[in-house]
Amino acid sequence: MFYVIGLGLSDEKDITVKGLEAVKKSERVYLESYTSILMVDKERLEAFYERPVITATRELVELEADEILKDADKVDVSFLVVGDPLGATTHTDLLLRARAQGIPTQTIHNASIMTALGSTGLQLYNFGQTLSMVFYTENWKPDSWFDKLEENLKIGVHTLVLLDIKVREQSEENMARGRLIYEPPRFMGPKQAFEQILYTEAARHQQLSDEDNKEGQNGDTKEGEGEGESGQEVERKESLLPPDKTLAISLSRIGTPTQRLISGTLEELAQVSEEEFGGPLHSLVIVGKRLHALEFEFAGKFAIGGEQGAWWKVGQEVYGVERETFN
Amino acid sequence: MFYVIGLGLSDEKDITVKGLEAVKKSERVYLESYTSILMVDKERLEAFYERPVITATRELVELEADEILKDADKVDVSFLVVGDPLGATTHTDLLLRARAQGIPTQTIHNASIMTALGSTGLQLYNFGQTLSMVFYTENWKPDSWFDKLEENLKIGVHTLVLLDIKVREQSEENMARGRLIYEPPRFMGPKQAFEQILYTEAARHQQLSDEDNKEGQNGDTKEGEGEGESGQEVERKESLLPPDKTLAISLSRIGTPTQRLISGTLEELAQVSEEEFGGPLHSLVIVGKRLHALEFEFAGKFAIGGEQGAWWKVGQEVYGVERETFN
Repeated sequence: MFYVIGLGLSDEKDITVKGLEAVKKSERVYLESYTSILMVDKERLEAFYERPVITATRELVELEADEILKDADKVDVSFLVVGDPLGATTHTDLLLRARAQGIPTQTIHNASIMTALGSTGLQLYNFGQTLSMVFYTENWKPDSWFDKLEENLKIGVHTLVLLDIKVREQSEENMARGRLIYEPPRFMGPKQAFEQILYTEAARHQQLSDEDNKEGQNGDTKEGEGEGESGQEVERKESLLPPDKTLAISLSRIGTPTQRLISGTLEELAQVSEEEFGGPLHSLVIVGKRLHALEFEFAGKFAIGGEQGAWWKVGQEVYGVERETFN
Repeated sequence: MFYVIGLGLSDEKDITVKGLEAVKKSERVYLESYTSILMVDKERLEAFYERPVITATRELVELEADEILKDADKVDVSFLVVGDPLGATTHTDLLLRARAQGIPTQTIHNASIMTALGSTGLQLYNFGQTLSMVFYTENWKPDSWFDKLEENLKIGVHTLVLLDIKVREQSEENMARGRLIYEPPRFMGPKQAFEQILYTEAARHQQLSDEDNKEGQNGDTKEGEGEGESGQEVERKESLLPPDKTLAISLSRIGTPTQRLISGTLEELAQVSEEEFGGPLHSLVIVGKRLHALEFEFAGKFAIGGEQGAWWKVGQEVYGVERETFN
């Protein structure tokens, strides 16, 4: 049997009882190491499983899948993935290959950030498509995520934004010299993510304003714009994502003992220091206009500035949520 | 400590090791019994936990939350929820109450249908907002889900549809006589769900056609309609959900040994018998137009009619996906 087993979010004990039983009877145990990381070392997994764990790099999974699947029709092989194992097509590909070879497969599900984000108090039902944000560089600032975010914002649903991680990067020098030496892993923090969001929002807004000016000269207007509710100054083109009037939440180390959530406006969150957010992993949520009272109240417990924070003002005045009392 | 613990999807062994440790040291263990069900009896949980399990009805949770939270600042109390515990605000409300009373809380996450639907081969990232469909009756056919579905379809993202369950229903007679006798639980099957979808699609289409005829008389047309790609007959008003040109997938007993997926057009799926889908729990997915090749291929493994099924024709001709070879 080829088992694909989710490990959940935090440590060795987040595996399910069923998953642990499968691992313990497996002849080989692989740990997928390039789409996410667990918050504990591989050694701790090995001690808990009483089994050696083989690190499965992207090269191994993509180029030598048959090595992983070898003999899985005769013996048990486990492939461990942080979170839920089927979030990304990376691993569905492995399952397709197994089936093509007549190998029986079993998936053992687990928690993922996509359900654990319920910790924000926002309802999972109210989330739209999920975005991924990569590290911007001097010359490369891919912003197609912004179009998807706008699609969600127009509907009014919330948006989960997953932040880039870089593992097994080579420096330019090591790559040029053909040395297989890798840089330490890098994880995008919320500060950088919020700054990138503000950067692209400003760039897109600039672009829209330019287009608008052109259209204005032609006596033409774009339908459906300039009708928003967020009360922008007249000289500024209406944005779906005004930094001082958009609520967001940072999610750090969800499901771990040091879990930290911070809620506020985009503008406020971009001012929070990296130290305040703390270590990886992080993701964030942009709050949609369909926010309702209980979501507002729960997520407000993490608001910058507490009861006096901009969270409450923007939620009531811009999002139109009324505060209720829960006791 | 007040623990809120996800049980996952299938049986007693889907709890995490961390969750099981918390249950075993808890003085009282509650099982939330009204938003979902586990596929095994409470007795099996009790035997596995070596602990009595108290069934938490909606009345208990909503009206006597303080009884559940009692002494949780001094002893450990576990509140078990099928799936991931924070999917619905029902349980965030309980956490808010605990915090208001100064009781420390810990959430132990687990798999939910929202991540396990990766078993379809569709990427979680490509899902929009989630819908819930209730049992239609003669006089009550609430169809606000259709507006949300259309929002998702316009963007091209996939849609998870959760199907109604009814537990602790009283017959009219028992209710009139004040007898606390409850009917056996009911779980909506995919057949009924697909029929309801076709019913509402037809009703909405009829409504649109009527409006269109009225507008036609006024020499007026609605912008943005009649531009779809699905090649409807001209006499039929363009629908975002043409039954013979929309792909969908039924998900039955996900995460259990009898898990069953069936993919096809809406029209085909509505023809499948209840027996074919099998027992509860079920949900379904409406496939969005952004379907890509690997998703198409993986979900096609479950297609009605196999390689000759309408799945492949509609996917290529309507959704515009090209088939790739995976080996």
